[in-house]
Amino acid sequence: MAVIITRLIFWAVIICLFESILSINPHKRRLSAYNPAIKNLLPKGYSYQTKYYNQQIDHFGFVNEDTYEQRYLVSDQFWNKNGGPIFFYTGNEGDIAWFCNNTGFVWDTAPEFEAMIVFAEHRFYGESMPYGPESYKDPTKLNFLTSEQALADFATLIEYIKSTTPGASNSQVVAFGGSYGGMLSAWFRIKYPNVVIGALAASAPIWQFHNLTPCLAYDQTVTKTFSYYSDNCVDNINRVYSTIDNMVKSGGSAALSFLSSTFSLCQPLKANQIDTLEGWLENIWGNLAMVNYPYPASFLEPLPAWPVQEACKPLSTILEDKLLVTGVAKAVKFYFNSTGTAECLNITQQATGSLGDAGWGYQSCSEMVMPMCSDNTTVFRQTVWDYTDVSENCYKQFKVRPRRDWVITNYWGKSLSAASNIIFSNGQFDPWSTGGVLESLSDSIIAIHIKQGAHHLDLRAANKMDIEAVKAARIQEKKIIRQWLQN
Amino acid sequence: MAVIITRLIFWAVIICLFESILSINPHKRRLSAYNPAIKNLLPKGYSYQTKYYNQQIDHFGFVNEDTYEQRYLVSDQFWNKNGGPIFFYTGNEGDIAWFCNNTGFVWDTAPEFEAMIVFAEHRFYGESMPYGPESYKDPTKLNFLTSEQALADFATLIEYIKSTTPGASNSQVVAFGGSYGGMLSAWFRIKYPNVVIGALAASAPIWQFHNLTPCLAYDQTVTKTFSYYSDNCVDNINRVYSTIDNMVKSGGSAALSFLSSTFSLCQPLKANQIDTLEGWLENIWGNLAMVNYPYPASFLEPLPAWPVQEACKPLSTILEDKLLVTGVAKAVKFYFNSTGTAECLNITQQATGSLGDAGWGYQSCSEMVMPMCSDNTTVFRQTVWDYTDVSENCYKQFKVRPRRDWVITNYWGKSLSAASNIIFSNGQFDPWSTGGVLESLSDSIIAIHIKQGAHHLDLRAANKMDIEAVKAARIQEKKIIRQWLQN
Repeated sequence: MAVIITRLIFWAVIICLFESILSINPHKRRLSAYNPAIKNLLPKGYSYQTKYYNQQIDHFGFVNEDTYEQRYLVSDQFWNKNGGPIFFYTGNEGDIAWFCNNTGFVWDTAPEFEAMIVFAEHRFYGESMPYGPESYKDPTKLNFLTSEQALADFATLIEYIKSTTPGASNSQVVAFGGSYGGMLSAWFRIKYPNVVIGALAASAPIWQFHNLTPCLAYDQTVTKTFSYYSDNCVDNINRVYSTIDNMVKSGGSAALSFLSSTFSLCQPLKANQIDTLEGWLENIWGNLAMVNYPYPASFLEPLPAWPVQEACKPLSTILEDKLLVTGVAKAVKFYFNSTGTAECLNITQQATGSLGDAGWGYQSCSEMVMPMCSDNTTVFRQTVWDYTDVSENCYKQFKVRPRRDWVITNYWGKSLSAASNIIFSNGQFDPWSTGGVLESLSDSIIAIHIKQGAHHLDLRAANKMDIEAVKAARIQEKKIIRQWLQN
Repeated sequence: MAVIITRLIFWAVIICLFESILSINPHKRRLSAYNPAIKNLLPKGYSYQTKYYNQQIDHFGFVNEDTYEQRYLVSDQFWNKNGGPIFFYTGNEGDIAWFCNNTGFVWDTAPEFEAMIVFAEHRFYGESMPYGPESYKDPTKLNFLTSEQALADFATLIEYIKSTTPGASNSQVVAFGGSYGGMLSAWFRIKYPNVVIGALAASAPIWQFHNLTPCLAYDQTVTKTFSYYSDNCVDNINRVYSTIDNMVKSGGSAALSFLSSTFSLCQPLKANQIDTLEGWLENIWGNLAMVNYPYPASFLEPLPAWPVQEACKPLSTILEDKLLVTGVAKAVKFYFNSTGTAECLNITQQATGSLGDAGWGYQSCSEMVMPMCSDNTTVFRQTVWDYTDVSENCYKQFKVRPRRDWVITNYWGKSLSAASNIIFSNGQFDPWSTGGVLESLSDSIIAIHIKQGAHHLDLRAANKMDIEAVKAARIQEKKIIRQWLQN
């Protein structure tokens, strides 16, 4: 059960990790911490104003009249002030400035559309804390952390902007989002089509829920991404867990020493940390697949182009025992230390959890219940999905229990025939793609497949090393958005 | 301001009144009280089972895990148990058995569609009290009385029924509703098209909100309905308020005695009750217009066919002073006492408010903020709409303040281009029609106008005295529903 719980936390955190920032210590996964250095990622010549909207904390009940200051970032430098459209990013589980700086596509595209740019922060992340530093301390306050409340925030914020910005009252609004933000943008369109004319939902695993996607899908997709470069790499990683287990079983403290030194751990490994070590490894493979970009990028870590290919190089021949562990350690060090600045690696900080981690942890323990499991053919350990265990663990951690089916009922599951004007883009290498919409469902629910694409590659700024598929995707996306705006 | 507040309560209550039952004392307006006598209205040969579903009290937060027993009524006597459709009535602000018994169209239509019939009770009405007798005692409990929670109840209830009833898992669901229930059925379709394939929203004033419909519209429509029969009737009623005011001003206690005896009041009228008396009169005109059915009916009161025409008979010539008051009193007595059983009339009970009244009072003080005003040309007193006053009064009464614009943002206002498969039917005589959708908006948002129709006449059981327009409306409605089910 410990494995299952660890995996639960792992999966809950991993989607957020993708939007988390590169922190000083590269092993510490922080969901929503704000790193001013990342500001440099906003392309030169682009700038925004930071604003705050006095937002209702409870949209779905009237007794609580409390409000909070929701942060949003606005740029009107390209905007046609006579009714030009608004490109509205539906903020994810993290600091909105980070998303703003890492969503270059919106910035690259706004000029030709003469669009205003708005990046709206998701409540309970970044600076948008409904109850300030107390927001996470009390379950009755965390109670207002739901996607429905976030969407209501976005809707009322847009109405406020349109009613108070001269020239914006008739502006059409297009939603953009990636990952959880992409799920939000799609859901925003289906629940509030009066507010947004359409949504670009990039790498949005809206079907990563009970009975909509096999729980095995994520792990299989990560495995496929690795196997794209090397079947031996997959075979090696697949066996490393049992190899470590056996090594520790038979080798005792010598084995622990070997592992500590091979992985260059900051603290000597203890016998009861094997599960943590293995979970830490698993985490890396998912991250690598997500950021398998065609050019050097500093997203979760500073990495060269095609990092999965690079990570697999030391694992390209079948290895066993100590050689296998050594090969895997090289892959890990490549991930964490491609710049060569980390002196040692820390497997425990990952689980400590920051405020941001707690946010997504809470969401995945309430609404965002994404079943995950694995068999013995992947780069992960074999696990089953036990909803009862998940529920018990959530209750212990947050005093709430997940409602597995509500997100499906509320956001329509696979019954999207009444939906319109949504682009679902997904990348071949992205582990979350298999939880997304991979086939067009109608003339206006369009799936775009990005061959060799990783997690919302299309939302990133144009890069001279961009692959053809993402260039084509962006052209198609712009064409569709133009059609929405013209109709 | 007293007038405004009285009018607010009046308007808040009047929509509910329409669904309220005929109680023993015909002057007491009770919203959701259940009168077993009304059961007789269910046509012979029709029967249902009463069931209860253990329903989540808070769908939009996870901390409160309380549940309640939501009542619903089921009939499978016509149902094709191999996937036949489900006709689902989205319960209004009252006892669901009463709606079940007064919505004969669903019963008349189910056999040819081989449909299961479900009438679901709205939380906080009838037996579906989230916190039992405490439900209305504490603002933190009333906090869960919203239309969003009610829609979520309906959605989860349908999923429960489909997943637990053999043969129903693939059944398509059609929503039905009238008045507030019609608003809910339309909103149900736009927010949960995954759950319902379409909605018949009868007499649903979904645009009776800020800036969507002139606040004067309701009063003008009532006035038009009266003027359809007699312009003199309108002229007389229009002047009766100032006539009474002047009479009391100049006549003192003699005038009060005259009024008491002319209206056959149970208690002698006091000088400070003139406003109550006049509000009570206004209430009657609205009710009469709503129930202006072409055949004798016991809806709010037992009445003969075309009751507005009948009520206007004593007012068909221009009257003044005591003759005018006497003529109006005759119209009033006709409304309350067409069966001749009431010994006296009571103007004060109306305002006492039952649990049901409190329910709609709360809803109209939170979400359902319907601006109402009147000029000097109607059968009502001249009033203005003062949102600040409304808000203050709501806070005093319920400790909540209305959010005027939320219902529009949340339910799309007039931006319904993304909606589909909704029939909006409205009757010419119905005061609520002008707050509804009177023109088709697309191929699948169809407006049906029922000439000479009153409040959701089409939802009533077929009657041999039915007018042609309602027969045609029902044929068209069935045709459209059949198209939904076949597609």
